[in-house]
Amino acid sequence: MSGSGKLPGLASDAVLKQSIPVPEDFQEVKGIDYSQDNAYNMRAKDLIKSMSTMGFQASSLSQACDIIDNMRSWRGKHKDTLEEHEQTGEFDDEGYQKTTIFMGYTSNLISSGLRDTLRYLVQHKMVSAIVASAGGVEEDLIKVLAPTYMGDFTLPGKGLRDQGMNRIGNLLVPNDNYCKFEEWIVPILDKCLEEQEEAMKKLGPKGLIAGSEAIWTPSKLIDRLGKEINDESSVLYWAHKNKIPIFCPALTDGSIGDMLFFHTFKASPQQLRLDIVADIRKINSMSMAASKAGMIILGGGLIKHHICNACLMRNGADYAVYINTGQEFDGSDAGARPDEAISWGKIKAEAKSVKVYADVSLVFPLIVAATFASEKPQN
Amino acid sequence: MSGSGKLPGLASDAVLKQSIPVPEDFQEVKGIDYSQDNAYNMRAKDLIKSMSTMGFQASSLSQACDIIDNMRSWRGKHKDTLEEHEQTGEFDDEGYQKTTIFMGYTSNLISSGLRDTLRYLVQHKMVSAIVASAGGVEEDLIKVLAPTYMGDFTLPGKGLRDQGMNRIGNLLVPNDNYCKFEEWIVPILDKCLEEQEEAMKKLGPKGLIAGSEAIWTPSKLIDRLGKEINDESSVLYWAHKNKIPIFCPALTDGSIGDMLFFHTFKASPQQLRLDIVADIRKINSMSMAASKAGMIILGGGLIKHHICNACLMRNGADYAVYINTGQEFDGSDAGARPDEAISWGKIKAEAKSVKVYADVSLVFPLIVAATFASEKPQN
Amino acid sequence: MSGSGKLPGLASDAVLKQSIPVPEDFQEVKGIDYSQDNAYNMRAKDLIKSMSTMGFQASSLSQACDIIDNMRSWRGKHKDTLEEHEQTGEFDDEGYQKTTIFMGYTSNLISSGLRDTLRYLVQHKMVSAIVASAGGVEEDLIKVLAPTYMGDFTLPGKGLRDQGMNRIGNLLVPNDNYCKFEEWIVPILDKCLEEQEEAMKKLGPKGLIAGSEAIWTPSKLIDRLGKEINDESSVLYWAHKNKIPIFCPALTDGSIGDMLFFHTFKASPQQLRLDIVADIRKINSMSMAASKAGMIILGGGLIKHHICNACLMRNGADYAVYINTGQEFDGSDAGARPDEAISWGKIKAEAKSVKVYADVSLVFPLIVAATFASEKPQN
Amino acid sequence: MSGSGKLPGLASDAVLKQSIPVPEDFQEVKGIDYSQDNAYNMRAKDLIKSMSTMGFQASSLSQACDIIDNMRSWRGKHKDTLEEHEQTGEFDDEGYQKTTIFMGYTSNLISSGLRDTLRYLVQHKMVSAIVASAGGVEEDLIKVLAPTYMGDFTLPGKGLRDQGMNRIGNLLVPNDNYCKFEEWIVPILDKCLEEQEEAMKKLGPKGLIAGSEAIWTPSKLIDRLGKEINDESSVLYWAHKNKIPIFCPALTDGSIGDMLFFHTFKASPQQLRLDIVADIRKINSMSMAASKAGMIILGGGLIKHHICNACLMRNGADYAVYINTGQEFDGSDAGARPDEAISWGKIKAEAKSVKVYADVSLVFPLIVAATFASEKPQN
Repeated sequence: MSGSGKLPGLASDAVLKQSIPVPEDFQEVKGIDYSQDNAYNMRAKDLIKSMSTMGFQASSLSQACDIIDNMRSWRGKHKDTLEEHEQTGEFDDEGYQKTTIFMGYTSNLISSGLRDTLRYLVQHKMVSAIVASAGGVEEDLIKVLAPTYMGDFTLPGKGLRDQGMNRIGNLLVPNDNYCKFEEWIVPILDKCLEEQEEAMKKLGPKGLIAGSEAIWTPSKLIDRLGKEINDESSVLYWAHKNKIPIFCPALTDGSIGDMLFFHTFKASPQQLRLDIVADIRKINSMSMAASKAGMIILGGGLIKHHICNACLMRNGADYAVYINTGQEFDGSDAGARPDEAISWGKIKAEAKSVKVYADVSLVFPLIVAATFASEKPQN
Repeated sequence: MSGSGKLPGLASDAVLKQSIPVPEDFQEVKGIDYSQDNAYNMRAKDLIKSMSTMGFQASSLSQACDIIDNMRSWRGKHKDTLEEHEQTGEFDDEGYQKTTIFMGYTSNLISSGLRDTLRYLVQHKMVSAIVASAGGVEEDLIKVLAPTYMGDFTLPGKGLRDQGMNRIGNLLVPNDNYCKFEEWIVPILDKCLEEQEEAMKKLGPKGLIAGSEAIWTPSKLIDRLGKEINDESSVLYWAHKNKIPIFCPALTDGSIGDMLFFHTFKASPQQLRLDIVADIRKINSMSMAASKAGMIILGGGLIKHHICNACLMRNGADYAVYINTGQEFDGSDAGARPDEAISWGKIKAEAKSVKVYADVSLVFPLIVAATFASEKPQN
Repeated sequence: MSGSGKLPGLASDAVLKQSIPVPEDFQEVKGIDYSQDNAYNMRAKDLIKSMSTMGFQASSLSQACDIIDNMRSWRGKHKDTLEEHEQTGEFDDEGYQKTTIFMGYTSNLISSGLRDTLRYLVQHKMVSAIVASAGGVEEDLIKVLAPTYMGDFTLPGKGLRDQGMNRIGNLLVPNDNYCKFEEWIVPILDKCLEEQEEAMKKLGPKGLIAGSEAIWTPSKLIDRLGKEINDESSVLYWAHKNKIPIFCPALTDGSIGDMLFFHTFKASPQQLRLDIVADIRKINSMSMAASKAGMIILGGGLIKHHICNACLMRNGADYAVYINTGQEFDGSDAGARPDEAISWGKIKAEAKSVKVYADVSLVFPLIVAATFASEKPQN
Repeated sequence: MSGSGKLPGLASDAVLKQSIPVPEDFQEVKGIDYSQDNAYNMRAKDLIKSMSTMGFQASSLSQACDIIDNMRSWRGKHKDTLEEHEQTGEFDDEGYQKTTIFMGYTSNLISSGLRDTLRYLVQHKMVSAIVASAGGVEEDLIKVLAPTYMGDFTLPGKGLRDQGMNRIGNLLVPNDNYCKFEEWIVPILDKCLEEQEEAMKKLGPKGLIAGSEAIWTPSKLIDRLGKEINDESSVLYWAHKNKIPIFCPALTDGSIGDMLFFHTFKASPQQLRLDIVADIRKINSMSMAASKAGMIILGGGLIKHHICNACLMRNGADYAVYINTGQEFDGSDAGARPDEAISWGKIKAEAKSVKVYADVSLVFPLIVAATFASEKPQN
């Protein structure tokens, strides 16, 4: 064929195949117009707006901001127009229904500088409930006691262990921080145990029925720790103050677990008990009570599944933003796209949802700057 | 410069820089020798052996097999030569110390065909303890009641929900399976609650001390479910039979959680309680009692952290194999390399450890074929 | 709500939604049946067969093997029954049409131990054409001159540079290897230049028309290097011997480029020229001539796109297997799924295609063991 | 052990291991201080500054901006103080040495809205040379002829092919765009061929020596296409106008290749030739001539390796920023960290370098807003 001078029809038909007329509602790909006056050192909202027609994850990021703005601005009926049994979920200061927002985050985000951003959201009541992994609870407390430091992903583990420096990605936590944490928490655990025992004595067999004050749960212990830490830099402090529950079904899976384990020796034969059944009732009830439910899920694993599962109880969330680096090819829940959750009834088919494929630390500061923190909070 | 005819020294010095003599212990990269007689339709062990000098994840996979063979073949002292307080951990049939192997897996692996492989390991007592996510518990039971099916990653969620088909990666679970699960488990939960209440009545205040039979924990409930399912295809059945504890601190985070939630309404005002403190004591105690500890962690999230954290209690595991698709760049625990765990004291500095970057379903069949299942089991 | 004893219908309707009857053609998820006699130290084909119903990437891997077996076993008409202009593409030894298989691989695979596997395929004429990146050409040659060694992903770059050790993933190439390569290749480049100049003198203006022997192309130079290296361990040697073209449009992007660059100084003002237009004609013509076209693409980047683009010339490949770790979320061609190539006409809509999400080194040994090397080659 | 009341020393020693005093130069992890006045709808530079101590990729992103600011602000000696043979590389308007910046990008970025950002950098002479993949050349031209549209990652390929809509991630390119491109480019290729032939006639044998006007190279053809497109929205237009070379060794690997292929039939027996050897000399010479060399590499594959390889000619770049989603575990060059390039002499050991693990579209708008576009350009 190499000698032939005739353009082969097979190739030209395939390459030059005609397309249908472009539908009118098609959106052109466009980027930043740098001839605009505001196109220098751009503000978050302008950047996000420009990214909406850029494609790839830029447009997903922009969509995430839209969805977050949708979920936080939605208002339904006024409380006064509702039957009493309908007066559930969240209401704004003027009495209108608003979205119940479930936010989930993994431990490492609290270790990172995102803690200040997460704290900001809780401080200003911008979310309704939180699901965190155990480290996402304890590292918030520990940071009140001593700082976490910048490190490097490649620092060799043996040298770090010899120095008592624990690595989390490119961060370092001196092990002394955990010693301080132990000193701080043991007296609190003593007191919790004491209260458990006293309530049991007081209530007798009734101490064990649902809702009894003798039953500690992860969320109840976390609330107590938030009260005790009493520091405005803390997420838990503001969650306690603003009555925003923090759920953590596997609260024993971290340093708090180590301390609870140690405490079983100190308390023996008594033991503080943490019941996880009461907490599943609590989070599921919040989901069912919500007028609309929104999910902002930062990271994968338990915290992602737990919020989604709670939203199944209402036949699906109305808004969903996932941000994580998981991939679906291994069938993991961490990597599952919002569309997978639709198959389960965890997100409504008509919900607005998006997944941003990114390290949360890379995009959440920009997202919050363009949404929750796009204007000064009023409270 | 383009007209010059002289080879520039800057470039040639950089490109042709001399290297030091190659150290004698350097291992040449080599692949499969296809001229060998066994180089056709190769057996697992031969493949794995050839992969050891291939580089990239091929050599990591081979290393994982070596480590697994190391952990399962290690033998220490005979029981009779040990003081009584030293007689802890695992022993082989002849009385010699052996490795306590902690295996962790995520829910999706039980949904996949790997369940048979995991069941095989438990059936033949090849592992000592398991940490699973909630789905890793319930899907094993549900599969006894009804099958899971092959699907596709791209099936649209809305259509699936309309049909009551739940998607897990490229698998499908008919929602009826969960209805069958509900029918099966509710009478069992009724009975567990009854036992809790009876034990409390019998024991009075003593019913609440550590180790009381009135206290249910996730691992205790899982063991009971394994007994009740009574089916040889089940991981839980064999775990019960072989006294291999299955830990799942967040047992409420899945369909079992839905059922426990529903049960709180049926049981009200009574409530089955699941205490997670007793379980953290149990797993940590196993870690401390072990002569040697090995970790085989399939997937990321809670199950990975939980086993590592337990091994911190003994100042580090002696063997560690991670298989997952997580990356370290986002600072997630899921993506953390074994060397990160060394900084925390969760893996010993001198331990043999490796991470294989892969979907578990892709490599674990080969790994097991070349290690645990390289010869017929004797029991 | 927490006091209520009535199971909420909202939740139970959502959780216990009924599913449609399972269609009869649904395939149950199943794993390895370890009670079978062949279930120990399994052979490649048995493993792959078991993986077909395991889900996730296990089933994709199994599908990849099926597709490869399909493409290599397909036979069309006998040559004698075809018009002369239809007698294009590949034929088996008995004269029947067979699939033209385009195999692509990235440089690192030749650096790894997979080189022996790739060489095996070329040696036994199991593929029809190759597209490689520049390193995929030169490292094959260099390995004849001196070995590559096992290293580690975490070896610090500065220390390695000081020692003249170049790192590729967890492999090391002593820089002396490149010095040896320079010594070997310079006389060959001298000769190629000489031939170019002689042909030009001989042919005059006709020396520059399409197909002239005075025009060197990447594929022609690669073929020559394969002839010169004259070593049975080499992919290029067998490609030369078996007339399997190796395409590498960016041949200057690697050590060969360094040598060609150096050579411009030595040869000045003459210069060896490498024309890439003649090569695009050559590969596209192969694609159009093929009776059926199959693609086996190992890795991403140029080599993936180049084969796909060639298959557009025939309105799509008939079989496609991608193996790589790229993801689609960043809009990269590397991460694009086969279905994206269908939109372009690079894969036929009715073709059999699959992507396996994996490091090639992890799965290709198993794939080849279960397909191309499942029985002894006859030639 | 479960009955024991004594805290085991093994566990407490491991958990409560003391750490060394924290070195004074350790940097605390910190996030955004939302009490600041500028902490609402933040500007790019403020966001980036806050991210520097956040950890994970947030701090890598901040570091990338620092390095870019470093490379663009560096100034060396004044031209007048240099010997003539030292007067190479880039100089600012006042005659001081500045960094030669090599920017690489993959095709998809030009398809995305980032094209405007990349064009801005070229328009304002903020980079010195570009390496692009073939699509990164042609899509820039095609966008002048007709737009690209927003689509979706999950649109099925068959339906798209039927409509003549080509998918790139979540973007769509109507196939008519390529027909328009063909109409536009064929007359230009005719003219290039004509010029090649005329120059050969004019120069005779001298037409083939290095640097002859009879020899077309990829970069020369790209420059010509930039001149011909003559549109201010085009990267190629500005590159031509500002004499910024665009290198693309595999220029045939895309639609331009299709057109060149078609053209071989139209031109037969003549043929436009594209020599890649002259281009490797050109880019390597730029690297050697540079006073300082900086790399900004957006994506992986050929464009990454090609810039790194050119910088080997000067024994390493002085600044390097990689942004991509590749991972090192598969030994790919795409996933190799900057430290790997140090082992090869492609980045200097003392250089400032960073890799940001992200889809470029997600972070490059923010990076440019905080660096190159942090103030109005003066030219």
